[in-house]
Amino acid sequence: MTFSVTVLGSSSALPTSSRYPTAHLLNAYERFFLIDCGEGTQIQLRKFRMKFSKINHVFISHLHGDHYFGLFGLLSSMSLLGRSDNLHIYSHSELKNILDFQLKYYHLGFEIVFHELIEGKIAVIYEDKQIQVTTFPLNHRIASNGFLFKEKTKEKNIRKEMVDYHQLSIRDIVKIKKGEDFIDAEGNIVPNENLTHPPFKQRAYAFCSDTAFDPSIVPVIEGVDILYHESTFADDMKIRAQDTAHSTAKQAAEIAKMANVRKLLLGHFSARYTDLEVFETEARQIFKNSFNVIEGQTYSVELEREYNS
Amino acid sequence: MTFSVTVLGSSSALPTSSRYPTAHLLNAYERFFLIDCGEGTQIQLRKFRMKFSKINHVFISHLHGDHYFGLFGLLSSMSLLGRSDNLHIYSHSELKNILDFQLKYYHLGFEIVFHELIEGKIAVIYEDKQIQVTTFPLNHRIASNGFLFKEKTKEKNIRKEMVDYHQLSIRDIVKIKKGEDFIDAEGNIVPNENLTHPPFKQRAYAFCSDTAFDPSIVPVIEGVDILYHESTFADDMKIRAQDTAHSTAKQAAEIAKMANVRKLLLGHFSARYTDLEVFETEARQIFKNSFNVIEGQTYSVELEREYNS
Repeated sequence: MTFSVTVLGSSSALPTSSRYPTAHLLNAYERFFLIDCGEGTQIQLRKFRMKFSKINHVFISHLHGDHYFGLFGLLSSMSLLGRSDNLHIYSHSELKNILDFQLKYYHLGFEIVFHELIEGKIAVIYEDKQIQVTTFPLNHRIASNGFLFKEKTKEKNIRKEMVDYHQLSIRDIVKIKKGEDFIDAEGNIVPNENLTHPPFKQRAYAFCSDTAFDPSIVPVIEGVDILYHESTFADDMKIRAQDTAHSTAKQAAEIAKMANVRKLLLGHFSARYTDLEVFETEARQIFKNSFNVIEGQTYSVELEREYNS
Repeated sequence: MTFSVTVLGSSSALPTSSRYPTAHLLNAYERFFLIDCGEGTQIQLRKFRMKFSKINHVFISHLHGDHYFGLFGLLSSMSLLGRSDNLHIYSHSELKNILDFQLKYYHLGFEIVFHELIEGKIAVIYEDKQIQVTTFPLNHRIASNGFLFKEKTKEKNIRKEMVDYHQLSIRDIVKIKKGEDFIDAEGNIVPNENLTHPPFKQRAYAFCSDTAFDPSIVPVIEGVDILYHESTFADDMKIRAQDTAHSTAKQAAEIAKMANVRKLLLGHFSARYTDLEVFETEARQIFKNSFNVIEGQTYSVELEREYNS
């Protein structure tokens, strides 16, 4: 029941000797979702011992090179490693043209299924039994999209000991999970809360990069467990942040606070900063639970029951 | 008067957690020539503290991704770093199409001057006062070119003390450098060898990757100081080497021996090998001065006078 994200790159457009460009790998129930794929992503995947073969879905936020230049090498390596499963790519339409053109020059042993992101729209772009992925518009110099990965509504869980005690049938269990009380053979009403544990909370992770400060995203990312929000600059460069449609650490923290998230991850650091402490320090003035991402680190969200629900 | 090559990548098509794909950086008199540009080359350049801005010429051997997928990121970073000087790229013509297509999507602040490599021909593709670059055909699954970087013929050097002693004019010096004797005011003939040091040897470095074993390249690379020859496989995989148009370490050593080079560098190691010792061991059975390349290491050729000439 894993729900975690591993950060593979933390730099902005210019990588440094110690920081790679953007890529995150979300593990939701051993399904792996790659979000952005900067140059060297395949090298980072290997370094941190993540299997290429488990990635079936790749989401590209926007078409600045530091967010997708690693895709060609990754596709080539997947093919060399014998991949035959389809790979789903979610991106703006021009990436399809770029890929089609590049793929003329080498043969992939698998199919790419391309899902076009529509500019400026909030839309569900993926779902399965457990997870739903929603994209939403960010505010950047070119079309840029955020992604929200959220577990679906969870049912209550039956207390195991009650199944035997009340001799519950499958049919009873289905009803009880939906919230009904149980009436036993003698006509006694057993209240639902005696029969069940509260459901697990829906876990959620939101990815917001690249973007200027834009509170219009707050309703979409409200209450997520982990918010990754770019913070290319510290407060000393807030004019430059505005001019380039990027955010400062403080602005990321403002969004985290407004959206009442549980944890804020900061990243996409400009190469001009060698010491990154200023990002955490400034963000924590506004939102305490702020952290600079560390490449190779995995941030997990544990299952918790909704006792307050 | 530096003449050295720094190896930035040593892996074949699949990078590993410790090996990057192909890229070499030749420093000839502080002119920097980049040969191949696999994914992550810009990251390696930064790691090893090589300045992007000094690279004005990029040579791409062939259009398998592990030899050029780093080019897009490098160009983008050069532009972000404020480059305005032209960049010369020497490659097969399809790369121009790929670049033109990619460059539609972002603006470079400098011009690319594209020099097309003609398949199957030996040709001089670059020269300046000190250096000449010759390309020659390799033997691979697609058009693949080797590159020979060679200093031009050197003149003899005047012994400084002789200039004062014989009161030599500029005109005298020019003649003496070309090998003439000197006749002083009293009509004495001073032999040229008393007036000069022998010239420095022409230094040379040859890059041969990717290629199957092919002795037809021997006359071109004859006597080079450093031969880089791919050795994707050890002898256990020689059938696979043949099938994929790659070489074994032994085959690279055979070429080094036939061409009577001074030092052989082995690289382009298949990801299936974690311990690379076998490459050196096998190559040294045939050519003693064989070395596995080490990423980040610089291999220099010192100036030596031609005392035997």
